[in-house]
Amino acid sequence: MAETIESSTDVLIIGAGPSGLMAAYWMARCGVNARVIDKKGTKVFKGHADGLRCRTLELLDSIGVAQRVLQEGHEVFSMTSWGPDENGKLCRQVTTDLEPNPPYAIAALSQGRIERFLLDAIAEHSNLEVERGVIGESLEYDKGLESDPQAYPITLRLRTLSEEEASPAPAHGVSDRSLNHSVNVDDQMDTIQHRKHKVGTVETLKAKYVIGCDGAHSWTRKQLNIPFEGSTTDHIWWVSKALLSTELGTDIRRIGSLTNASGTVLIVPREKNLVRFYVPLQEEHEVSQKFDRLAVTLESVRQRVKKIMSPFHFDFNVCDWWTVYQVGRRIAQTNAKGRVYLAGDAVHTHSPKVGMGLNMSMQDGFNIGWKVALVAKGLAKPSILDTYKSERYPLAEMLLDFDRQWSALFLQQEQQKSHAAPVAQETLIAMRDILRKTEHFSQGHTSYYRASSLVCKQSKAVAQHLTPGEKLVPVRLRSQANGLPSWTTKMLESDGRFRILLLAGDVRSREQASRVWTCGDGLTRLLRQFAPAKSKLDSVIDVKAIHSAPFADVELDMFPSIVYHFDENEGCDLTKVWSDSACDWGQQSDGKGYESWGVDRLRGGLIAMRPDQYIGWMGELEDVADLARYFQGIFVKSEVRPML
Amino acid sequence: MAETIESSTDVLIIGAGPSGLMAAYWMARCGVNARVIDKKGTKVFKGHADGLRCRTLELLDSIGVAQRVLQEGHEVFSMTSWGPDENGKLCRQVTTDLEPNPPYAIAALSQGRIERFLLDAIAEHSNLEVERGVIGESLEYDKGLESDPQAYPITLRLRTLSEEEASPAPAHGVSDRSLNHSVNVDDQMDTIQHRKHKVGTVETLKAKYVIGCDGAHSWTRKQLNIPFEGSTTDHIWWVSKALLSTELGTDIRRIGSLTNASGTVLIVPREKNLVRFYVPLQEEHEVSQKFDRLAVTLESVRQRVKKIMSPFHFDFNVCDWWTVYQVGRRIAQTNAKGRVYLAGDAVHTHSPKVGMGLNMSMQDGFNIGWKVALVAKGLAKPSILDTYKSERYPLAEMLLDFDRQWSALFLQQEQQKSHAAPVAQETLIAMRDILRKTEHFSQGHTSYYRASSLVCKQSKAVAQHLTPGEKLVPVRLRSQANGLPSWTTKMLESDGRFRILLLAGDVRSREQASRVWTCGDGLTRLLRQFAPAKSKLDSVIDVKAIHSAPFADVELDMFPSIVYHFDENEGCDLTKVWSDSACDWGQQSDGKGYESWGVDRLRGGLIAMRPDQYIGWMGELEDVADLARYFQGIFVKSEVRPML
Repeated sequence: MAETIESSTDVLIIGAGPSGLMAAYWMARCGVNARVIDKKGTKVFKGHADGLRCRTLELLDSIGVAQRVLQEGHEVFSMTSWGPDENGKLCRQVTTDLEPNPPYAIAALSQGRIERFLLDAIAEHSNLEVERGVIGESLEYDKGLESDPQAYPITLRLRTLSEEEASPAPAHGVSDRSLNHSVNVDDQMDTIQHRKHKVGTVETLKAKYVIGCDGAHSWTRKQLNIPFEGSTTDHIWWVSKALLSTELGTDIRRIGSLTNASGTVLIVPREKNLVRFYVPLQEEHEVSQKFDRLAVTLESVRQRVKKIMSPFHFDFNVCDWWTVYQVGRRIAQTNAKGRVYLAGDAVHTHSPKVGMGLNMSMQDGFNIGWKVALVAKGLAKPSILDTYKSERYPLAEMLLDFDRQWSALFLQQEQQKSHAAPVAQETLIAMRDILRKTEHFSQGHTSYYRASSLVCKQSKAVAQHLTPGEKLVPVRLRSQANGLPSWTTKMLESDGRFRILLLAGDVRSREQASRVWTCGDGLTRLLRQFAPAKSKLDSVIDVKAIHSAPFADVELDMFPSIVYHFDENEGCDLTKVWSDSACDWGQQSDGKGYESWGVDRLRGGLIAMRPDQYIGWMGELEDVADLARYFQGIFVKSEVRPML
Repeated sequence: MAETIESSTDVLIIGAGPSGLMAAYWMARCGVNARVIDKKGTKVFKGHADGLRCRTLELLDSIGVAQRVLQEGHEVFSMTSWGPDENGKLCRQVTTDLEPNPPYAIAALSQGRIERFLLDAIAEHSNLEVERGVIGESLEYDKGLESDPQAYPITLRLRTLSEEEASPAPAHGVSDRSLNHSVNVDDQMDTIQHRKHKVGTVETLKAKYVIGCDGAHSWTRKQLNIPFEGSTTDHIWWVSKALLSTELGTDIRRIGSLTNASGTVLIVPREKNLVRFYVPLQEEHEVSQKFDRLAVTLESVRQRVKKIMSPFHFDFNVCDWWTVYQVGRRIAQTNAKGRVYLAGDAVHTHSPKVGMGLNMSMQDGFNIGWKVALVAKGLAKPSILDTYKSERYPLAEMLLDFDRQWSALFLQQEQQKSHAAPVAQETLIAMRDILRKTEHFSQGHTSYYRASSLVCKQSKAVAQHLTPGEKLVPVRLRSQANGLPSWTTKMLESDGRFRILLLAGDVRSREQASRVWTCGDGLTRLLRQFAPAKSKLDSVIDVKAIHSAPFADVELDMFPSIVYHFDENEGCDLTKVWSDSACDWGQQSDGKGYESWGVDRLRGGLIAMRPDQYIGWMGELEDVADLARYFQGIFVKSEVRPML
């Protein structure tokens, strides 16, 4: 007989795809009482999304796994476009190099591997495990409990599925090669299904917060009766080992599009010489309810692509994975209802043409994750959770807008090409312009996060090229302790703490040094005000000093005790002082971090960063009182904080 | 009742430490029928060696794991030395920056992690697993069978140990913290002992080749009656979370030595803020048989170091691992006897002062590994195995010589300091000179490999800064297929193949292009001559073209078919053409590879590289016939080669 269980958790994450795992990372990292469930019996091994934009890579760097992506994945730095020339012969028409934005370009890697890295990062910091083969059967929300942080307003009924129930028939198109032949060694343990509870177990779970990361068909969204608005079109896409003729050789390793009278393919180079092709089978203007996805075969697509690529030879003998899917351009009416949040495809779906889905999803999970974690721990005020909607929902709208515009231009171009006419100059210019206009948004360099308790837009412009609500522009700095350079994306690790960057300027100047020491004293008092009782001074806010003097001219004892002091129990923390100095030792730093940020090299300044590396506040070294007010808007007063 | 088994293997590796695993990597990578045994029941998790020199990191890059070392380990780029000033007060005396040799500096990381990465690299390419808890009981060698490549001249008796037998009492000093609390997540499965055979099983194993990597007390060496000559001294070393006073703060993250009247400590900064201290308890001139290692306690060492570091505060509250060990400066009379080879500590032991032990051992294993692998597969002539002795044994002698000289100077310095006298200028100069003189050797940049069938010293100097028998100087090149830069260490992956670098020069010149195409035709014929029947043309020798023209001015079809052609079954291999072009996209390449190598940018040349990235031969583009003769000295004639 099936068991029934009653239990509770602070946070429940529904769905262990990229957005759910990004949120789960924060629970693991901050030590939150949390659970993660997924209806499928195993993780993803093949297929699904694969494109990682710069900003996503920066975030992965901050959780310590970017180097794994670069090792296994395929980096891309330029895009090409092919179409017919005046004589109708397919030729390369445009090559666009991406704007250099160190440290990262675009990378493409199978979603299954990205999930692997996130699972490993979670395991490194906690015992939190994804409970697989578990579905939600009901979700009830008690609005009356919403304002009590200690209450559990959400009640869910969960059921543990059998292996059959948790293994949906392979998606149409998944190749018949047995799974184990191609999964990575470190994924193999995960091909076996295991369950936390006996099959059939029904659990009544009370939760303080729920994050629904359960995809385009989100069960969570349906439970909340949140409408999902938009329209539908049809595409097919598949991944194969591609065999292409010589003339196309180079471009098969760049992101590209290729269109002629027979249709269009989008090309995404992948790890291990794999190439992913996206082939639209129907465009928006042709959408028909009668389109029969199941009638599509691998052979029919092969013939279609052969025709599109003609006169170049195209064929493949191994197809790693393929599927046909219906693209909906849809957006949920909201991404938050009470203490239940939606992230990723549960909020927004769109065409693969803009290559942003995986990124928006992961960044959603990253954004809501740390906020829920800090609130669930009783450190931050519940009001900061409202910023999830104000920060991420407008981006979902922009994303759909971008997709709509881009798809229209793309279609226009396709139609011109399909008449074997050269693409009109206006179309090309419009496409280039929209790409340029949206590049910072699509790469994730600009986020447009609005003013809120987390983002003080009235900050002084001590860093003229930085903006509250936007990311810290990554620069490479040298550790004053050992001289080794590090990108700020890695050095400012995502560990759940807010950070104050004490831009100390040129500390060789006596006057400046005095300002820095006074500021240091102020910061010590500030941290005392916010550190929970019985925990370390830097447990919720960490201070890093970044000075502009040459590395060799400076010693650690030139810095105030907030960043350098001796502790009988802990010794010296040598990770807190950094130099914006050039270093040509191996991997370079250029010593121009202050310039990148627009900071006065003598006078420096103060920057407050949120746990997700976005800028919250800026000011002069003398503005510590104002900085304290910023944090007062975020942290719970210490008397109600739990003793740690 | 204990089972008895009879079996055979082509290659047996005894000992799964760093040298044994480096050798095992080649077996895995080349698909050799091999086994690896180790008498201990589990891998190493804590302690042992930790210093990785540049060259070792380059080799780890070529097997795809260097980025894991850099992610977890601690890089070091400068060294310091502390001693008493005129007033006897401890102060920093010398800071020496290492000579920049991109891509890698020195890194320090626990041996257990390095073994993890090697085990993972092995698992990625094969099912080869280390059989733990297995000891050799006897080894017989039948010299009469030595000249028959198909024969099994070595007969061993192996026994499977019980968990108790395979778990020696923890080394004196190992802390009592339970193992599982501190091992990494990906090591945890390996803390459980498992056996291939039942405990007590005795196996009679016949082997064609044996590689003994079983450490300073090598059982293999003893079975071969090879004398181990040298003397002994005593040291203690331990790893602890160090708590140091502020004044020493910076230097605790640099490799350093510190000496005063009370003694000496060597400091090696490590991952996760750990610091390793080496504390000599007795120096060579004081060696006594009566020294009681077991009398040393953690507390006694704590007091000793406190005294040495005085007036600076020193203490620790967590000691991750420590041990007392006797340093022998010893060398085996030979590293090869018949078809049995010794590698690593089985051949040479010395003081930790020079920080080379782990590196020499891993490079030994790397050197013998590919040679045995190619011979065991029937591809290479058995005579190449003789080069293991001629290449590695003189280095073992040099290593001991360096250790002897350095230790003497170190002692001289210590004695001066211990009399509270400033170190004599001559001593400091002598130390600096020997460091400079030996830096290339100790970092592994110079190897002095002698002339042999694998090293043609009579090569033409087409690359004026490269030398046959030495490594290829690493440079950063751009893939002509996708423009992404890669260090040659990674791009020339250690996959068991020899490589021909077709330095194509400036292919925009018509005359040069014609030379390149003619050379390409010659290389195609050459590869046909050596490729085993029914295997791919590039299965034993691979060709990479590296041209000097600007990346954007060149297309792949400007290159001959040996590096770019379309194959109906395989498509185009896009990994074979590289550009020595500048790229400021993210991680830079400077476009000065040809200059680093001393190659004419117009005319180029040919370089043959061994599977271990050492240069075997050099010549002009017209010297293909001479190059063929080089390979004739290495490969077995194709008629006796197995059909693949």
